[in-house]
Amino acid sequence: MPTVKPVEYDEASPEVRAVYDDIMATRKTDWINNFWKALAAHPPTLKRTWESVKEVMAPGALDPLTKEMIYLAVSVTNDCTYCINSHTAAARKAGLTDEMLGELVAVVGMANETNRLSCGFQVEVDERFKPRY
Amino acid sequence: MPTVKPVEYDEASPEVRAVYDDIMATRKTDWINNFWKALAAHPPTLKRTWESVKEVMAPGALDPLTKEMIYLAVSVTNDCTYCINSHTAAARKAGLTDEMLGELVAVVGMANETNRLSCGFQVEVDERFKPRY
Amino acid sequence: MPTVKPVEYDEASPEVRAVYDDIMATRKTDWINNFWKALAAHPPTLKRTWESVKEVMAPGALDPLTKEMIYLAVSVTNDCTYCINSHTAAARKAGLTDEMLGELVAVVGMANETNRLSCGFQVEVDERFKPRY
Amino acid sequence: MPTVKPVEYDEASPEVRAVYDDIMATRKTDWINNFWKALAAHPPTLKRTWESVKEVMAPGALDPLTKEMIYLAVSVTNDCTYCINSHTAAARKAGLTDEMLGELVAVVGMANETNRLSCGFQVEVDERFKPRY
Amino acid sequence: MPTVKPVEYDEASPEVRAVYDDIMATRKTDWINNFWKALAAHPPTLKRTWESVKEVMAPGALDPLTKEMIYLAVSVTNDCTYCINSHTAAARKAGLTDEMLGELVAVVGMANETNRLSCGFQVEVDERFKPRY
Amino acid sequence: MPTVKPVEYDEASPEVRAVYDDIMATRKTDWINNFWKALAAHPPTLKRTWESVKEVMAPGALDPLTKEMIYLAVSVTNDCTYCINSHTAAARKAGLTDEMLGELVAVVGMANETNRLSCGFQVEVDERFKPRY
Repeated sequence: MPTVKPVEYDEASPEVRAVYDDIMATRKTDWINNFWKALAAHPPTLKRTWESVKEVMAPGALDPLTKEMIYLAVSVTNDCTYCINSHTAAARKAGLTDEMLGELVAVVGMANETNRLSCGFQVEVDERFKPRY
Repeated sequence: MPTVKPVEYDEASPEVRAVYDDIMATRKTDWINNFWKALAAHPPTLKRTWESVKEVMAPGALDPLTKEMIYLAVSVTNDCTYCINSHTAAARKAGLTDEMLGELVAVVGMANETNRLSCGFQVEVDERFKPRY
Repeated sequence: MPTVKPVEYDEASPEVRAVYDDIMATRKTDWINNFWKALAAHPPTLKRTWESVKEVMAPGALDPLTKEMIYLAVSVTNDCTYCINSHTAAARKAGLTDEMLGELVAVVGMANETNRLSCGFQVEVDERFKPRY
Repeated sequence: MPTVKPVEYDEASPEVRAVYDDIMATRKTDWINNFWKALAAHPPTLKRTWESVKEVMAPGALDPLTKEMIYLAVSVTNDCTYCINSHTAAARKAGLTDEMLGELVAVVGMANETNRLSCGFQVEVDERFKPRY
Repeated sequence: MPTVKPVEYDEASPEVRAVYDDIMATRKTDWINNFWKALAAHPPTLKRTWESVKEVMAPGALDPLTKEMIYLAVSVTNDCTYCINSHTAAARKAGLTDEMLGELVAVVGMANETNRLSCGFQVEVDERFKPRY
Repeated sequence: MPTVKPVEYDEASPEVRAVYDDIMATRKTDWINNFWKALAAHPPTLKRTWESVKEVMAPGALDPLTKEMIYLAVSVTNDCTYCINSHTAAARKAGLTDEMLGELVAVVGMANETNRLSCGFQVEVDERFKPRY
């Protein structure tokens, strides 16, 4: 169970309620997931985090599904149960198929393996990989 | 410097040379990067790793650039210098622009932050996020 | 469930019981938490770990609450469920308020984010940050 | 070397320069460290990150030195060279002595050890540690 | 619960069933554990992963118990619940005693601690530790 | 460079010198590596860490080479440059061959991969893996 008391909409302060309203309007849903209810125990963190997530995950040079896949790749690497479940759900909603999920997890697994192979042998960065600008 | 002696093409055994040849043919390049030269100190690991990477990174339900971005997201999360440099180079070759890289790193940073917010407060997975099958 | 059989006080060897007694005396409590009961499956690890924790967490140049907060920051970064729960409880006992916990988790989240931003772009250490001694 | 071209003040856009000016004014310094120069390759990330760091690290229920120590504890746990160097420097400026640094690193080491002891044996959370609210 | 539908033997495709048969024959068991049933949601990942695990974990310069202990040490460091449970079981089957497990977890804990002590102080690699070849 | 001033033998306090002497006597060497010189900036951490390492790494139910391999496996997983170099050197001194190192790094890579595959799909622990005691 959470280490802080989650804040339900009905008992929320106007400040928290304003963030909840924006989350539901932006996501076109009628509910608030547990992550935000826990952050509401510290309103400045709720507001700042939501505004950052909203900006970072908006469509840009990368489309929303690609961003969700990157988010999921990080969450799997960190073995974060909550984020794996919530972002798998979000990615599926954005179009992730079983086959895409299979390939994504395969790449994540392979990267975690080769990250250790390269540092296990202390491989040095090739000159040709260094950026030119 | 690497903790094992890297194997150059000229001194490689036929077994290692066959892998090097396949890497260069598959990637349409004329050189072998340091990662494979170090793995060659243990030929079975070189062969198995190359075959796995070749299979996992081939175009499938996800395109090569998306796979490179996922690879890079994991490598940044693990702070693996070699892989960050090699996969940034590979992703750029596959079309990654400065703006896409900026957004990718922003998502990686945000995911690493919210992973800790959710576990810092021990947030529980919402029923609605649980898979249905 | 634990992968080793936890050792209850009543069935403990004199060696283990002596450590349990010291834990309760030092912490002014009348119970032993599950962490120590599991370590007791390997008595030398129980004894060494307790003596180290006792020394490291004692008041010194840093006060106990600050030490608990640092402990919690590490445990959140590692997503260690047991330690997050036990050290949140210990920190609250030492005076941690909801507002302090909110700020602590916010700093932990931000640090995990900027750690990846700096390595994602492979930022080099500034000369001015290098120590002088 | 960084994988993006760092942006110097003289070549910065008005948008980037405004952030740089605010960093120097807030911190009462006359220079910009490499972290921000790299983030400037993606101006929205520069602006958002600076505003978040400024808010999170401001004095609140926790004082600035305590926040710097928590930041450093996370950076050490993640083995992030840039952040270890920059936040050790910042913490020293805020009053961190050699003895306090020694105790901080000792707590970080101990937490990383016991995090693994508890999950190595799969210790279960005690009922008494569960929050009451 | 898993984010993909696990594949039972009876409903498996011939391709998946062939892998399941090889797992049971190689391990001399009559059941398939949940890990493989989940991977079967993406048959190429099931096949590739099984073949790699089979090759890597076979007796070689290192005996099977030593390999299981190394596997467990990594899984504990990553706090991976599934792998800690499955590889503790596998290691016990291969001969791991309570005392060996106690020493293994102690070394894992100590390594995680000193890893942070060395990077916390940014210790430089001694010339004498550099490889000679 | 280290963030604390390393302590050379000639300038060491009697307390620090006693630890240095014990390190050299125990290891049958005539020099002190940088790790201990940095820890000496905080003598209680030097003393406690050395005594713990000495106890944990002594021959027991596991032989010294096996312990060094476990230490190295953790250090590679954490990508700790100092510890990878120092414990590869120590393991080689204890008998590690190139082939054993190759197999060790292969197991470490594979464990890091399957750790993410199992949590990527949120695989549940099989009943048969649960301990019986």
